[in-house]
Amino acid sequence: MGKSYLIVPDGGVTTPKGFKAGGLHCGLKKTERNDLGAIVSEVPASAAAVYTTNLFQAAPLQVTRESLAEEGLLTAVLVNSGNANACTGAQGEADAYAMRAQIAEALGVAKHQVAVASTGVIGEPLKMDRVSAGIERLPECLKGGAAGSDDFCQAILTTDLVKKTACVRVVVDGQEVTIAGAAKGSGMIHPNMATMLGFVTTDAAIGAPALQTLLRDITNLTFNMITVDGDTSTNDMLVAMANGLAGNAELTPAHPDWAAFAEGLRYVCEELAKAIARDGEGATKLIETTVSGAASDADAQAIAKTIISSSLVKSAAFGADANWGRIIAAAGRAGVPLNVNTVDVRLGDILVLEQSRPVAFDEEVALAYLKGDTVAIRVDLHMGSGQALAWGCDLTYGYVRINASYRT
Amino acid sequence: MGKSYLIVPDGGVTTPKGFKAGGLHCGLKKTERNDLGAIVSEVPASAAAVYTTNLFQAAPLQVTRESLAEEGLLTAVLVNSGNANACTGAQGEADAYAMRAQIAEALGVAKHQVAVASTGVIGEPLKMDRVSAGIERLPECLKGGAAGSDDFCQAILTTDLVKKTACVRVVVDGQEVTIAGAAKGSGMIHPNMATMLGFVTTDAAIGAPALQTLLRDITNLTFNMITVDGDTSTNDMLVAMANGLAGNAELTPAHPDWAAFAEGLRYVCEELAKAIARDGEGATKLIETTVSGAASDADAQAIAKTIISSSLVKSAAFGADANWGRIIAAAGRAGVPLNVNTVDVRLGDILVLEQSRPVAFDEEVALAYLKGDTVAIRVDLHMGSGQALAWGCDLTYGYVRINASYRT
Repeated sequence: MGKSYLIVPDGGVTTPKGFKAGGLHCGLKKTERNDLGAIVSEVPASAAAVYTTNLFQAAPLQVTRESLAEEGLLTAVLVNSGNANACTGAQGEADAYAMRAQIAEALGVAKHQVAVASTGVIGEPLKMDRVSAGIERLPECLKGGAAGSDDFCQAILTTDLVKKTACVRVVVDGQEVTIAGAAKGSGMIHPNMATMLGFVTTDAAIGAPALQTLLRDITNLTFNMITVDGDTSTNDMLVAMANGLAGNAELTPAHPDWAAFAEGLRYVCEELAKAIARDGEGATKLIETTVSGAASDADAQAIAKTIISSSLVKSAAFGADANWGRIIAAAGRAGVPLNVNTVDVRLGDILVLEQSRPVAFDEEVALAYLKGDTVAIRVDLHMGSGQALAWGCDLTYGYVRINASYRT
Repeated sequence: MGKSYLIVPDGGVTTPKGFKAGGLHCGLKKTERNDLGAIVSEVPASAAAVYTTNLFQAAPLQVTRESLAEEGLLTAVLVNSGNANACTGAQGEADAYAMRAQIAEALGVAKHQVAVASTGVIGEPLKMDRVSAGIERLPECLKGGAAGSDDFCQAILTTDLVKKTACVRVVVDGQEVTIAGAAKGSGMIHPNMATMLGFVTTDAAIGAPALQTLLRDITNLTFNMITVDGDTSTNDMLVAMANGLAGNAELTPAHPDWAAFAEGLRYVCEELAKAIARDGEGATKLIETTVSGAASDADAQAIAKTIISSSLVKSAAFGADANWGRIIAAAGRAGVPLNVNTVDVRLGDILVLEQSRPVAFDEEVALAYLKGDTVAIRVDLHMGSGQALAWGCDLTYGYVRINASYRT
């Protein structure tokens, strides 16, 4: 069965109809890299968002929540990097509101149609004079096409090594619908946490409630199935905007092309999530864990996430060590039932444990496989039909270096 | 208020009356270090044990469980290092039973009065010819005093850098009661997991059920509040033996000296637990996290364990980075309610966050403190009277080196 979507290799957040984006350097980052950016739709877009579950939430999340609660529509999203505006008290809240008000006025849109996001230093007040001067210049920097997308992608990075973007096309009602996304994550910030920010644009017509439900479901299978170090940030946020310019009939779960759209959106989110995992601090490889044969999908997810979060598994991946003992030990402490006598473990296609018993395998072949830039850990529990996928990265000297010595 | 116990600086598992111990090299370890050891009581002792919660449990745990279920009495505990006898199937079970039978016969005690424990390689069959020859020689190696304790302590180590032992005296019914313990943990094994083994000896008179309840409660406050990397092993086990030779009236919760005994046992377990954390793979320092002012002790425990488990917090400790942002981010994802506006954070005595707002502090003073070999992280939530203590270690290049490159 073919995929319902067509990958657009060079696509970005400006590829869907009616979106422009841009970025500039306003002075929050020490380098000359962009640190302020925006995505703007030419018409108000149905909006949805998912936020960090951390109890400490940065001011911009509260402001964005308020915006979406009003009408479920967004025309613009404004992002700064270099300062997270977190743990900044009443001043931080006032600053986030001021950012929203200024960009709304500059673009001539209602305040509640603007979302704001921040990533960077925690506990330091925003240099609002610089932000404000930047917002003033921002509208003239907005562009369509690759240039706008690139400028925006750079503006949201902290210490990410690569820009992260994905784009697909699906057909809905015979119309070409485009779905795109940009993300940042795993960057080092000061005093640092790895903030995850994601932005999805689409020209599909879809109501905000349906988009919210779909975004939440897909987030649980993609962004919520990655880990770099198990820590969640005060600023994590994923925002989606659907401006309807593709001209399709409004997408709902009853629409015949709903599944195609959902599959496309899932692909975009999964690609961004995997890109974040692969670009994890100090990472040299992507680890993809597949758990099958579980009693339920939820059980499979719990096991996959425990494996991908294990420091021992992550270190073994860095060392190209075919260490199945650590994999089953992680599975065994995931807090869900499993049959300890029926577990198979594969590293790529190499069977290393069958029915919970060690299998003799060629260490040289395993070493060669594990030295690659992607390692698949496949666990089959032989209990039921539950399955899950999770992504992470190896634990390396680089991770320790980045996170031990940043402030000194 | 004074402590109820007196610390015995050079004490070990043979210090309580009626215990001998010993160890020898039987050939499971590649080096000449001891790899087989035992503790023997001259009379049957009330016994209690706590086991790993990992669903994958090594064969010796099952055999020990069976022994204790019979009468709640132990006369001896036999331990080997160098091979965990885990994931070894029916042969592994047969080997664990054979070890128990042989040492029981050699000592002239009932099989069900013997516990067995193993730590080391997973998934490889025990070299039973070597183990068996070692067991034959073991009874003549048993000694009282420091020599017996030392030989035993060496026999249970894998890659631990230091032997771990603790001993206290308490007064019960006017009689001197001694409580001692030995532990190993955080060692590198192949294909490795950090097994925790702990052994407590006491000459107190106490019934098995009371000892079991007390041991479980104290384990929850000590061994269960440490983490090196969040992974639990297939072989973790803590065994306590109380032989009653001190001559006190049987200890029960109603006994006037129950609290004194409990306090002494807690001290022994806490010292062993802290020694394991400090000797964590690659660790350069002990991290002690205190959470106070929580809604409940359980909430405080959840937060303390989340902080101590955070790779970001652990890396910051290695880098002597006064990184309070990571501490509150960990607290905020612990899964328990907290007031995000009333949190104080101290590093040692240095206040860095007050009522959730950053406090200016002297970075030089903080750096000097954080470079020490013990770092205290103190979090006060100002919500209630719940409190908890947890211990861990820093995340270092050494941890990655040990765990990435062992097999290659």
